Amino acid sequence: MFYPKSVAVIGASRDEKREWDQGWVGMLLRFGYPGRIYPVNPNASEILGLRAYPSIKDIPHSVEYAILAVPAPAVPALLAECVSACVRFVHIFTAGFAETGTEEGRRLQQAITEIVNNTSTRVIGPNCMGIYCPASGLTFDIRLSKKLGSVGLVSQTGIGARRLCFLANQKGVRFSKVVSYGNAVDLDAPDFLDYLGQDPETRCILCYIEGVRHARQLLKTVRECVETKPVVILKAGLTEGGSGAAASHTASLTGSREAWEAFFKQSGAIRVETLEEIVDQSVALLYTPPLTGHRVGIVGRGGGFGVIATDLCENAGLLVPEHCSETKRQLEQIIPAYAGSSVRNPVEIGLGRSGISKDYSNALKIIASDPEIDFLMTYIDPETYRHYGGLGDWSSELATAISNVIRSTHKPIIAIIPEGHTAEMFSEITETRQKLLDAKLPTFSSWEAAIRAVSKLIRYYEFVSRNNVSNPSEYRTY
Amino acid sequence: MFYPKSVAVIGASRDEKREWDQGWVGMLLRFGYPGRIYPVNPNASEILGLRAYPSIKDIPHSVEYAILAVPAPAVPALLAECVSACVRFVHIFTAGFAETGTEEGRRLQQAITEIVNNTSTRVIGPNCMGIYCPASGLTFDIRLSKKLGSVGLVSQTGIGARRLCFLANQKGVRFSKVVSYGNAVDLDAPDFLDYLGQDPETRCILCYIEGVRHARQLLKTVRECVETKPVVILKAGLTEGGSGAAASHTASLTGSREAWEAFFKQSGAIRVETLEEIVDQSVALLYTPPLTGHRVGIVGRGGGFGVIATDLCENAGLLVPEHCSETKRQLEQIIPAYAGSSVRNPVEIGLGRSGISKDYSNALKIIASDPEIDFLMTYIDPETYRHYGGLGDWSSELATAISNVIRSTHKPIIAIIPEGHTAEMFSEITETRQKLLDAKLPTFSSWEAAIRAVSKLIRYYEFVSRNNVSNPSEYRTY
Repeated sequence: MFYPKSVAVIGASRDEKREWDQGWVGMLLRFGYPGRIYPVNPNASEILGLRAYPSIKDIPHSVEYAILAVPAPAVPALLAECVSACVRFVHIFTAGFAETGTEEGRRLQQAITEIVNNTSTRVIGPNCMGIYCPASGLTFDIRLSKKLGSVGLVSQTGIGARRLCFLANQKGVRFSKVVSYGNAVDLDAPDFLDYLGQDPETRCILCYIEGVRHARQLLKTVRECVETKPVVILKAGLTEGGSGAAASHTASLTGSREAWEAFFKQSGAIRVETLEEIVDQSVALLYTPPLTGHRVGIVGRGGGFGVIATDLCENAGLLVPEHCSETKRQLEQIIPAYAGSSVRNPVEIGLGRSGISKDYSNALKIIASDPEIDFLMTYIDPETYRHYGGLGDWSSELATAISNVIRSTHKPIIAIIPEGHTAEMFSEITETRQKLLDAKLPTFSSWEAAIRAVSKLIRYYEFVSRNNVSNPSEYRTY
Repeated sequence: MFYPKSVAVIGASRDEKREWDQGWVGMLLRFGYPGRIYPVNPNASEILGLRAYPSIKDIPHSVEYAILAVPAPAVPALLAECVSACVRFVHIFTAGFAETGTEEGRRLQQAITEIVNNTSTRVIGPNCMGIYCPASGLTFDIRLSKKLGSVGLVSQTGIGARRLCFLANQKGVRFSKVVSYGNAVDLDAPDFLDYLGQDPETRCILCYIEGVRHARQLLKTVRECVETKPVVILKAGLTEGGSGAAASHTASLTGSREAWEAFFKQSGAIRVETLEEIVDQSVALLYTPPLTGHRVGIVGRGGGFGVIATDLCENAGLLVPEHCSETKRQLEQIIPAYAGSSVRNPVEIGLGRSGISKDYSNALKIIASDPEIDFLMTYIDPETYRHYGGLGDWSSELATAISNVIRSTHKPIIAIIPEGHTAEMFSEITETRQKLLDAKLPTFSSWEAAIRAVSKLIRYYEFVSRNNVSNPSEYRTY
């Protein structure tokens, strides 16, 4: 499914500009899909330089994957033709089925379900975006990264999946395989998860689910996945209103809140609530070495953010303990007693730019060797540098300083760089974040996001260790 | 204090480039402070074109406000000179007092406390950024907005206050008066709040507090403020670790968690946990008409964000009820049944660009007139437009559509526009957000932030109505 040698696009437009800009044939060409592309349109002989066929039956080669992008009423007949032509996988992009809540929509959905039942054709959808797989050249948006990654995403929502992929790309997360599967008349979450669980290219699985037909099957599959790789799940539609919304969106039956609470307890999946949180959680999973404890050393670059951060940490079940006396002694030697500095935990290195590389990395090293500290969180606000002597090449200095520390300690370090408030700062911060991610440092844009992701990560490693599943360090990938 | 006719800068640098870039004299000149500026430096006769004086005693005019920016050990003697010279207010920028936790720091702090006791000189600080007041030309960062606003900020942290002001400026919040007051040896939170509570230029008060000397006084003052304007408070240092951090930051005694829980219950202040949340809460307060109920109509522009949003709303105590049948009937006439659309609550207008102005504003109007709905929340992801037919001038179209709706209904409308993931999108979104704010629409960058702020706003209006304090609609200001 993820590596088809040929793709037919049923419903390719004769309007070539439109097809190039927004159509599936245009998408495949522009994203660099290397296999054969067969546009299907009864009124065209050529589309975007490719030979077009009146119907799937007329294609003289075998077709492994077809995309159905035609009005809903036309779907059943064309799907039946795909089945006759032994197409292996059909992605039904078209919406307008049971999610509309109309009799006609339900009837059409029932029809396509019956057409594929007991055939060798499997369906993704309808009402979904299908597949994004950078390695094979399939995508649902040409602006998504072509870089290969190790994260799998199984998402019942399509637009949400696209937003999630964009956000993730921006934050250093790349994908192995993404599937948006909508109403799930045939292939459903457990099928995709089962595959990704065994896929050696996938080290971490993200999941957005509204409803699932076989809940027991899902539990079994997720448990199996968690034995070899972490699974993050956003289960939407658990409130009364949310359940109704899911019915309109993907015609899903969402299940009871109690059943899902039990599901999360038993499965070991990491539970999240928003798309943004899925992304943050995947950054934490990909970039953080296994966390063995919850005692955090906080290192700021001056100012009082440490007080807020400490409260957030301790409210989330982390501890911000006192340093041992040796740590304090060593810190006192390098941290000058001036504006905004402190050698206590949270440590504030001070506002000046002077310490950006040497003092800062020395302080991180000293704290990392404190036996009372399990991991470090450090806050870097570029504004501070800009104010105190200009930014210069602070992001390179910072990345060098931190890489230097990472090489000298096994303790995890987590960075928080707040969002910029101008377009210029936005670009600088994106670049800096990328440098830190290249140095294998998990990087978040707020204390709140970082602390939430990290405390869930700790609970995940506790589950892993309690249930004696495989070594979490093997999950690490960049 | 906020409108001094003259300012002395004690410790102005002879290095004119440095003073221009980073010094207080440079800041006053660059920000356009219109009063008299007296640089004080025993080794200079002129600084940045202004006559410099060896000491405050040598200035032949009265000085209303002095900024002390000299090393901590020099502060007591120079402060004593200010007292002798009858300077009305002294902002001690210098750090290195009780917050260092050293004997010397505590001794110096005690000394300055005694020097000003029973004199006519009042002190802000030490260890703080002082005042930002766009109307009088005082600031602690020249990049802060010169536009006048109606929000007052009382902040014990300085760097945090600056970050908060930047964030707030970017999100459409402008300030009347900001004070960063650090260790508070003399003037403390209740003094500033008492002033802002009575200040006609201030319609809403934000507050970051680590500790306060007279807690009962604070409760009394905040209660009085809440009678005429909303007060938002971030109380930092309530965990064990946070309390220690506050001691190192501003030498504050933070008080017990129980006492502060009681404080929030009794005072009617809106409680928040992060700087980002203070900003979101102030956007909600400034731009949202009074909220009279918790039944929300959600309007998306396609995709499944409505399911997540509905869950978040209902988990936060809001309700996403079914529309009345007349609303559904009217919506069915304008919303086509295709990809991603739904006439149920949450309504999804659909993905196409076609409906951006007419259908969208009509749908908002129909829902706003539903008696089952108290207010609307609408989600706008620019990616959707970019994908389906290009962005064009979508932000103007959107602003026009929404202004059009706002004029036709009294029901509050709240917009969510997610952050962009490229610098170009960042600029576009900032510009769009500004247009929506100009149209008096409260705008947030995530569902989570919007829902949190709005549900706290509803609880605030409930408090106001229960306690029969003044009409909340009078708080509205833009």
